[in-house]
Amino acid sequence: MMDSAEFRKRGKEMVDYMADYLEEIEKRQVYPGVNPGYLRPMIPASAPEDPETFEDVMKDVERVIMPGVTHWQSPYFFAYFPTASSYPSLLADMLCGAIGCLGFSWTASPACTELEIVMLDWLAKMIHLPKEFLAGGDGDGGGVIQGTASEACLMVMLAARTKVIQQLHLKHPELSRGEIMDKLVGYFSDQFCATLGTTPSCAFDNLLELGPICKEENIWLHIDAAYAGSAFVCPEFRHFMKGVEFANSYNFNPHKWLLVNFDCSTLWVKERTDLTDAFKLNPVYLQHNHQECGLITDYRHWQIPQGRRFRSLKLWFVFRLYGVKGLQEFIRKHVRLAHEFEDLVRQDERFEISADVTLGLVCFRLKGSNELNKTLLENINQTKKIHIVPCKLRDKFVLRFVICARTTESHHVQFAWKHIKELAVELLNGGYQTQIRN
Amino acid sequence: MMDSAEFRKRGKEMVDYMADYLEEIEKRQVYPGVNPGYLRPMIPASAPEDPETFEDVMKDVERVIMPGVTHWQSPYFFAYFPTASSYPSLLADMLCGAIGCLGFSWTASPACTELEIVMLDWLAKMIHLPKEFLAGGDGDGGGVIQGTASEACLMVMLAARTKVIQQLHLKHPELSRGEIMDKLVGYFSDQFCATLGTTPSCAFDNLLELGPICKEENIWLHIDAAYAGSAFVCPEFRHFMKGVEFANSYNFNPHKWLLVNFDCSTLWVKERTDLTDAFKLNPVYLQHNHQECGLITDYRHWQIPQGRRFRSLKLWFVFRLYGVKGLQEFIRKHVRLAHEFEDLVRQDERFEISADVTLGLVCFRLKGSNELNKTLLENINQTKKIHIVPCKLRDKFVLRFVICARTTESHHVQFAWKHIKELAVELLNGGYQTQIRN
Repeated sequence: MMDSAEFRKRGKEMVDYMADYLEEIEKRQVYPGVNPGYLRPMIPASAPEDPETFEDVMKDVERVIMPGVTHWQSPYFFAYFPTASSYPSLLADMLCGAIGCLGFSWTASPACTELEIVMLDWLAKMIHLPKEFLAGGDGDGGGVIQGTASEACLMVMLAARTKVIQQLHLKHPELSRGEIMDKLVGYFSDQFCATLGTTPSCAFDNLLELGPICKEENIWLHIDAAYAGSAFVCPEFRHFMKGVEFANSYNFNPHKWLLVNFDCSTLWVKERTDLTDAFKLNPVYLQHNHQECGLITDYRHWQIPQGRRFRSLKLWFVFRLYGVKGLQEFIRKHVRLAHEFEDLVRQDERFEISADVTLGLVCFRLKGSNELNKTLLENINQTKKIHIVPCKLRDKFVLRFVICARTTESHHVQFAWKHIKELAVELLNGGYQTQIRN
Repeated sequence: MMDSAEFRKRGKEMVDYMADYLEEIEKRQVYPGVNPGYLRPMIPASAPEDPETFEDVMKDVERVIMPGVTHWQSPYFFAYFPTASSYPSLLADMLCGAIGCLGFSWTASPACTELEIVMLDWLAKMIHLPKEFLAGGDGDGGGVIQGTASEACLMVMLAARTKVIQQLHLKHPELSRGEIMDKLVGYFSDQFCATLGTTPSCAFDNLLELGPICKEENIWLHIDAAYAGSAFVCPEFRHFMKGVEFANSYNFNPHKWLLVNFDCSTLWVKERTDLTDAFKLNPVYLQHNHQECGLITDYRHWQIPQGRRFRSLKLWFVFRLYGVKGLQEFIRKHVRLAHEFEDLVRQDERFEISADVTLGLVCFRLKGSNELNKTLLENINQTKKIHIVPCKLRDKFVLRFVICARTTESHHVQFAWKHIKELAVELLNGGYQTQIRN
């Protein structure tokens, strides 16, 4: 079995493998050519009885895994939204793994809880969240790392539901819980809650319209800025978050666009007790002396899972090794590259831009039918030189081009546009036969 | 900003730091001496504008972080339950970080989905789950990695609720959703669902009693074997899971006791559609060509979050680099050490064993009042040479001693017992003054 001496050797080999992979990622085909079920026949049907060697495993990483990987960190990957990656974050994750502690309560590992509290304050300050959301201010706010925006939204929905059920139960004790729940309404747009930067087109809800209505009607306002939120480290994009002061809760994903590896979705609330009242869990084996003193954050009351990793290390490493200026520079580069692509599209009258380009996403299409654009997308993704995904905007089939990788540069964008244009020309000239995959 | 050349250097330094930390962890005080709020004054109030150096950050890891860490991987840590750690798992996590892909759908990264399907089959075979739970059999079963057992249990509760609401809605279309929900009952023991290995005392529900009742009454039976499940890689412990064939769903946490770093909670269902019907989500930007062919697993329908990491790499590395025999040896060593501690307790007539020792947990106490045992626990944890937590069993305050670290050996157990006995003698002789922490 691998001991620490072998780990020193293999760990360093792995560091080189990681650096090699990321340095040379553009030589790999960005989207794999495998068919469903490809992997099972390539490996044994059961785990081995006896240990194998590390060399055997690493050989299989290239033989079995890599041919089936979609290379999200490739500069030719323009699909979905970015999933962040940076060297400081990888280093912090290694440290987090070695420490291998759980942070469900303060006492379970005090540093794990305390660094998270302070990092969420650092981040709130960086994006100019109102001070009511900070843990270190005078108020009752604070932040927490969730796994994903879905979990953050689920948490606040459950907290909001608990709060309103309690209020209504006091007012109408004759109603059962089920009768109250029948009357509850959650308001969502056709994309999601109130959203800053929707997934299809990175559109923004107007918080200055929504906010006062929610306040007047006593409606919990949650704002999800999963992708766009990272951009608010730059002052020039903060106008999109005007009205955030009306929110009860706010979340975005540093693991999308702030160079922090997945998973790290940050959620802030103005009233900590809204979360903790809904989720309190306190068996004897988790009780500790410091509980009653009021200074303590036990993060298990802030989330669905009980266990939690030391994820704030990633924030700390990234913030310190980039600095605010480095993060701003990174965001600005991506937005600049998106506008560079937008300009290329606008210069070609066969194409149209389908939505305002606000940050790193460009929605575009060939002027013409949805079928035409579907075929263009299929041809792009079958050629596998770049990878993009579509969306629908008001019944129009639209191609989404997102600047994703940390290492994407102008020449990758120029290549992508040239490639898309060539496939479009072939398609418009009828010279390209689409192969239908089964 | 850190480039790949610097990452090669810093990554190798980090590997040595990780190995040093784990090799010498027993020299560190297992439980920290910090007070709530210790960290905030030790670091700046905001993120730096300009990048700092890696040396500065690593200096602060020792200055700021380590004094506040509870060392879960220390062989003197006997609290809660183990949180797994092994070198192969750390290496796999590094690789997972470098690849940095998301696996919410098959097409998002085919290898990520396919390795997970097959690894969950490998693991199901290793613990002799009925073949109805396998994806590669003739049935409709399959497994998925969840973050934690809490999420696994939430998933199956929501799936079971959706299923029964749909059934009742067909039978009683006059009832509203709220009226139906008012009538739903979830049955739990005083610990949790049906549990193999409870948290306080590692007790086991009798599935041969529960199973037939659930079957007859059309009740969804979920079995949570979060801690104990790992032991079923050894044939001699599988008698505890007799009756598992009655379950609709089953989960346990390889991140507790199977050498796979957190987070990795494995969940199996007999009917995949029970999960996917409850959670299907299918916007245009996630649709893909392979969806209709029936061969495809899109794991976003199996979980609350949308995003997911390439966690099956950890299982693959651990299974191959330990082999089934290596995993069995590891489990058996822990159980042997627990019985060694049990024997020591039983030889001292001032103490009593409070529950059957089934696996790696020993529940014990001084014969006498709860107050006496509370004071003993407090003295143990204030001395900080070992760390344990208590539980309550039938109104008795009990001390839980769990073999946790991968590197715990007989001499650590002997030391712990000698230390506990000394503190007990001091306490019984009245020679030890408890210092009350504020």
